Amino acid sequence: MRATYEALIEHGYENLTIQRIGDEFPKSKSLIYQHYDGKDEVLVELLEFLLDHFEAQMPKPVGGNAHDCLRTMLDYVLAPEPDTERVELTKVMVELRGQAPHNETFEAYFTANDGRFRRSLADIVERGIEEGVYRPVDADAVAEFLLTTISGGTVRRATAADAVDIVAVRDEVDAYLDARLLRDDAA
Amino acid sequence: MRATYEALIEHGYENLTIQRIGDEFPKSKSLIYQHYDGKDEVLVELLEFLLDHFEAQMPKPVGGNAHDCLRTMLDYVLAPEPDTERVELTKVMVELRGQAPHNETFEAYFTANDGRFRRSLADIVERGIEEGVYRPVDADAVAEFLLTTISGGTVRRATAADAVDIVAVRDEVDAYLDARLLRDDAA
Repeated sequence: MRATYEALIEHGYENLTIQRIGDEFPKSKSLIYQHYDGKDEVLVELLEFLLDHFEAQMPKPVGGNAHDCLRTMLDYVLAPEPDTERVELTKVMVELRGQAPHNETFEAYFTANDGRFRRSLADIVERGIEEGVYRPVDADAVAEFLLTTISGGTVRRATAADAVDIVAVRDEVDAYLDARLLRDDAA
Repeated sequence: MRATYEALIEHGYENLTIQRIGDEFPKSKSLIYQHYDGKDEVLVELLEFLLDHFEAQMPKPVGGNAHDCLRTMLDYVLAPEPDTERVELTKVMVELRGQAPHNETFEAYFTANDGRFRRSLADIVERGIEEGVYRPVDADAVAEFLLTTISGGTVRRATAADAVDIVAVRDEVDAYLDARLLRDDAA
């Protein structure tokens, strides 16, 4: 996975070959050929590996209600100054996502991945409703909206240089949560 | 431009060559070589052409206040059932945007393009404040947020099959506008 990641950063998707992944791999190139049919299969495994790594780094709030939990998640995914490793990882994800319109393997991966993330968001919103912190909103609709905004932030940051004011985006997300979700007596 | 577009849809960015654009071009291949240094230069011109085409199709509300104008724009960019031509165009845009993390030509293009769209959105919000329809919000922050959500919707729809509930996204955008922008006496 490390070899694939290094080769992808160095060459980009377009110029990536199993050969070049092999060049980064200290063991035997034939091991890669034995395990994978082509570069897309390696890359989907890389994406899953990177996503697990990304999720493992996400801070887990101890205690606190659903709203604290949602804010902690948003602080992480819309961080004003992500570290270099995160920036690089995001670029790789966005580049591979750009293959999805013409590549069913990646389309299936990103569809499943979106579904997983949306489910986590909806679970938090549902918990907030149960806790009485949130109004009885449509948790799936809220999750779809939040995921869409987060995806937009991720893609724009990876593709529009330093031109995205992510702090403004985050402030407006908070304004939305305050106005739409938080119960008046919980605000 | 038509030849480039057809070649791009047929081959995808990765497998696109000036040769293949030439194959779609009824006139002489050498004309293309005379005018362009490489495929990225042709593609940026294609993107500008497509965007002008896209903007020309956007309905222009006659009469109505800033809020009517913003809703008309959102109806268009977050349309529940865009026609086949729009779907294809969006896929092309998203695929080329996916090149931006490792391609300065596309990065510069999408950065400028985002800036233009954000400016239009901010202009509408500012007009709404002047008209007394909207509260005195930070128009740039609202525009940044709306653009991010629209971008996320566009990217997700082009890469996650039919898995995006765009109607839910649109409903939550409306809820945000109602709660954050619309003055109580204008609602």
